Amino acid sequence: MGEQLRYFLTEIKEKIEEQLPRHIDKLAAPQTLKEAMVYSLNAGGKRVRPALVLATLKSFGKPVDDGFDVACAIEMIHTYSLIHDDLPAMDDDDLRRGKPTNHKVFGEALAILAGDALFTYSFELIATMQGVSAEKKLLLVQEIAKASGPEGMVGGQVADMEGENQSLSIDELMYIHEHKTGDLLSASIISGAIIAGATSNDLINLKMFAKELGLMFQIKDDILDVEGDAETIGKPIGSDDGNNKSTYPNLLGLDGAKAKLNEHKDKAREHLAKVNMDQQLLLALTNYVAERDH
Amino acid sequence: MGEQLRYFLTEIKEKIEEQLPRHIDKLAAPQTLKEAMVYSLNAGGKRVRPALVLATLKSFGKPVDDGFDVACAIEMIHTYSLIHDDLPAMDDDDLRRGKPTNHKVFGEALAILAGDALFTYSFELIATMQGVSAEKKLLLVQEIAKASGPEGMVGGQVADMEGENQSLSIDELMYIHEHKTGDLLSASIISGAIIAGATSNDLINLKMFAKELGLMFQIKDDILDVEGDAETIGKPIGSDDGNNKSTYPNLLGLDGAKAKLNEHKDKAREHLAKVNMDQQLLLALTNYVAERDH
Repeated sequence: MGEQLRYFLTEIKEKIEEQLPRHIDKLAAPQTLKEAMVYSLNAGGKRVRPALVLATLKSFGKPVDDGFDVACAIEMIHTYSLIHDDLPAMDDDDLRRGKPTNHKVFGEALAILAGDALFTYSFELIATMQGVSAEKKLLLVQEIAKASGPEGMVGGQVADMEGENQSLSIDELMYIHEHKTGDLLSASIISGAIIAGATSNDLINLKMFAKELGLMFQIKDDILDVEGDAETIGKPIGSDDGNNKSTYPNLLGLDGAKAKLNEHKDKAREHLAKVNMDQQLLLALTNYVAERDH
Repeated sequence: MGEQLRYFLTEIKEKIEEQLPRHIDKLAAPQTLKEAMVYSLNAGGKRVRPALVLATLKSFGKPVDDGFDVACAIEMIHTYSLIHDDLPAMDDDDLRRGKPTNHKVFGEALAILAGDALFTYSFELIATMQGVSAEKKLLLVQEIAKASGPEGMVGGQVADMEGENQSLSIDELMYIHEHKTGDLLSASIISGAIIAGATSNDLINLKMFAKELGLMFQIKDDILDVEGDAETIGKPIGSDDGNNKSTYPNLLGLDGAKAKLNEHKDKAREHLAKVNMDQQLLLALTNYVAERDH
């Protein structure tokens, strides 16, 4: 991992984790609601989406400070989606990153509302942030709402639920990942580019790059799940398999999945090469996604 | 009820009900998700919030056509809040307006996601609508996100949950109503004014007017619940009472609640008088809210 990439995945992470609870603390809202919101924001994670926002901004030669509010907003949306996914009616998970899930601590009703509140506040944060023009803020709302909604993350989640215990085609599996996780990853990159004032041509190429990167991320997760060391990735090996879930290695075999990963990596690099920016950082990220061991 | 007001509460309602499902039908999203979204949008209701958006626009002398997208978006947010409120973890209601609630028909998981999707899509609709400037659209997102979030509707819902089976003060009761229902009613009026290009002074006076109107609405609901005819209002008289809920008549007595209603009505008229618009329609609405029998 390059030095600059390490900076984005470590130091930026710390800064984001400092800022996230501060946004909530200052709200005039019931204390228990704020506690439930902050609890899940503080629950850790790699903070990949904020890193993508800021790395893209940096790659366009702009100061990363301009992107922290949007980075926090997108992490709030990711957190809301995890709180709702974990609910008894959905995945019914008791633990998330080794800590009790939101509804185990605060009860189902407050967990639903904490998710709703995080999501709503994220749009308020974007729409009211300083130093970015109205036009850019509106583009951010458009991009992020589309990525999170029925045609994006929520649609992907519904398709995932409906696909459970069914054998899916590769296209169906790609649809699920593209929308359930890919669209918000892509929106993170595009958000950085919007703040940086990228041209519409650059936005188009970055969107194609981001789509490949999102698929790479998921295929690599599936591969790690099969061959990874249980201690390294922190969950029982083959846990998705036990769920009778369609995965890339299940559909294509392990070698087939690895070939697929490389295919998407080549395409990602191709699209990235067309963007008028310093490509080094996102290139390092692309390699990291393909080669990481956890 | 004046002729013009009747138009807003009947003909506008029909137009809104025609448009609501069309927005969802055209989405590229899983069919079951779209069905769950449309089911609750089609479940009826007075469509008060859309009427407020459009009546305000009209009062500023602007064409109502400019406001239909925002009116639909706000009705989607109201609908999302009802779907989540009805969930087993929340109010656990089987019926809403005489029809099975969303989770009774589609299951809890899809009901949660249909709510999430309606809410998300409402922001996309506002941010992408035609014929309104970026600045105005951004103001709409700010206003509506604040009214729906932790400092608005979600905060009010949490306070309402926490206040159940407790005896509340009048201030606590007002906090709940102001945020749980009042903020989105107010945002409806302000949204009409934003589209119309109202001055910030007019926005301030309208906001104070809207706050009084929202409280009037709730106090009148409480009064009707005590003295209304069960057939007219369509639910068992005193049903909130049976819930051991704090209401205005419980806290102030029936006469006290009526006096309170008149107090807020006077204040509402006072604030409205300061707004540079044709006040006739919103004045008729104010009288209607105080005098309606259901």
